[in-house]
Amino acid sequence: MRWCRIGPAGQEKLGCVDAEERVRDASSLGSADEVVSFAAAGPPAAAALDALPRAEAGVRFGSCVPRPGKILCIGLNYSDHAEEAGMEVPKEPILFFKAPNTVVGPDDDIRLPRGGDKTDWEVELGVVIGREARYLESDEEALACVAGYCISHDVSERAFQLERGGQWCKGKSCDTFNPLGPWLVTPDEVGDVADLGMTLDVNGERMQDGTTSTMIFGVAELIRYASAFMTLEPGDLITTGTPPGVGMGQKPPRYLQAGDVVELAIDGLGRQRSAVVAADES
Amino acid sequence: MRWCRIGPAGQEKLGCVDAEERVRDASSLGSADEVVSFAAAGPPAAAALDALPRAEAGVRFGSCVPRPGKILCIGLNYSDHAEEAGMEVPKEPILFFKAPNTVVGPDDDIRLPRGGDKTDWEVELGVVIGREARYLESDEEALACVAGYCISHDVSERAFQLERGGQWCKGKSCDTFNPLGPWLVTPDEVGDVADLGMTLDVNGERMQDGTTSTMIFGVAELIRYASAFMTLEPGDLITTGTPPGVGMGQKPPRYLQAGDVVELAIDGLGRQRSAVVAADES
Repeated sequence: MRWCRIGPAGQEKLGCVDAEERVRDASSLGSADEVVSFAAAGPPAAAALDALPRAEAGVRFGSCVPRPGKILCIGLNYSDHAEEAGMEVPKEPILFFKAPNTVVGPDDDIRLPRGGDKTDWEVELGVVIGREARYLESDEEALACVAGYCISHDVSERAFQLERGGQWCKGKSCDTFNPLGPWLVTPDEVGDVADLGMTLDVNGERMQDGTTSTMIFGVAELIRYASAFMTLEPGDLITTGTPPGVGMGQKPPRYLQAGDVVELAIDGLGRQRSAVVAADES
Repeated sequence: MRWCRIGPAGQEKLGCVDAEERVRDASSLGSADEVVSFAAAGPPAAAALDALPRAEAGVRFGSCVPRPGKILCIGLNYSDHAEEAGMEVPKEPILFFKAPNTVVGPDDDIRLPRGGDKTDWEVELGVVIGREARYLESDEEALACVAGYCISHDVSERAFQLERGGQWCKGKSCDTFNPLGPWLVTPDEVGDVADLGMTLDVNGERMQDGTTSTMIFGVAELIRYASAFMTLEPGDLITTGTPPGVGMGQKPPRYLQAGDVVELAIDGLGRQRSAVVAADES
């Protein structure tokens, strides 16, 4: 199943996408806040789905899940990206948090932060937790905690992240820095999550072209590992790291400017298209 | 005003403490989830307070605010602690996040994490945000965003924080790692927040004995600074750093053991008393 949240920001309704790629209004089944429960519960009967009305053409997609309780990010998790960056492959997953109020819809604007001039892109596989994860011992247990997968854009202001001292969160938590969606896709529909192609284009130019097959720590291992340090809860998001091709890695480095358009895609998880807009100076 | 949340975990009711140190059941005024709004709105009429029933003796205090949207921690923010640690005074505030599902009541147990043998204490001044803070320009604007202050215990597992690679959040986010309260005290009642004594005892032995007067970056500056990188929202918690005397700084280092009792106090903000319990191995 591909679940989504559709409608104006703050008034999203539950939606889903049928086999013919039509968006359906699923608000008769429940509220958009319950999307993680619906994904974790398994698909409704085919007849119930067929009876859902079509959503209006061009309906806005909200973030595919409501604001998470936490967003756990994985740093430097692609071997080819580590190589590109000239950095050693980490022995254990690098964990950090992103503020949850960064989440926006997959096609919403990305607003540059005031005083930031190194705002960078990162296409990532997002993992949404469907069941409490705590001291997990096996990959099977870990995968049973996944409600679904989505595209997660881990927008990052490098000047804040790397030049202002201390920990990375400073450059990860600006408003609009986590477009999420369009869909929350259940694991049965994703297939092999360790073999998904992923791309990111800026103004039509391909910048990132990777695959989850070069992840250093896979999805099951990441969940199991994180669960030793904290309790993951339904609705939490893990954003699992980015393949090569970020702006900071270009020669010379290249960053997002107002007017740019960023497009992301991951096999089976849909597409995002965000316009970059100027900082709010008012 | 001193607001609180009283009753069994998960069923807390709104409460407050009157001038004679009696805890009152304020559930007739509103729900415990609204405590931040009540603190930000100013005190109710004296007659309304007088009419509130007394809470039962020995009532449990929950965390003084519900689970925050985010917990923003400030690293190395006391000049005497930086000196003790032999570390340079940071040029800009060091920011990191703690998982919000670490928050527990001020007298609830602190559970050691599995595999952690360096669980440490940190008494801190907690600042609860009452109004959206975004690109603030003055200290006055920053202080107007404060709903109140409280004791925040930033429990930290040093082995996870410092020996497992990457960012600090690994050692800050275990279950029960943020006892918070007992009270949310409004700024008018706190007086000079830059001159509060603060102590932490382990089994009756004084380990930390500091004052907020040695904070490197004060409350107003911290809020203003953070608001340049992220939007702070009502209910968010800033935990502002710890004075000297943490376990890691002892010679030899000393950490919490099951059976220990940790007591924290900050002038005007009350006291915490937590028992340390063994890791959950079941």
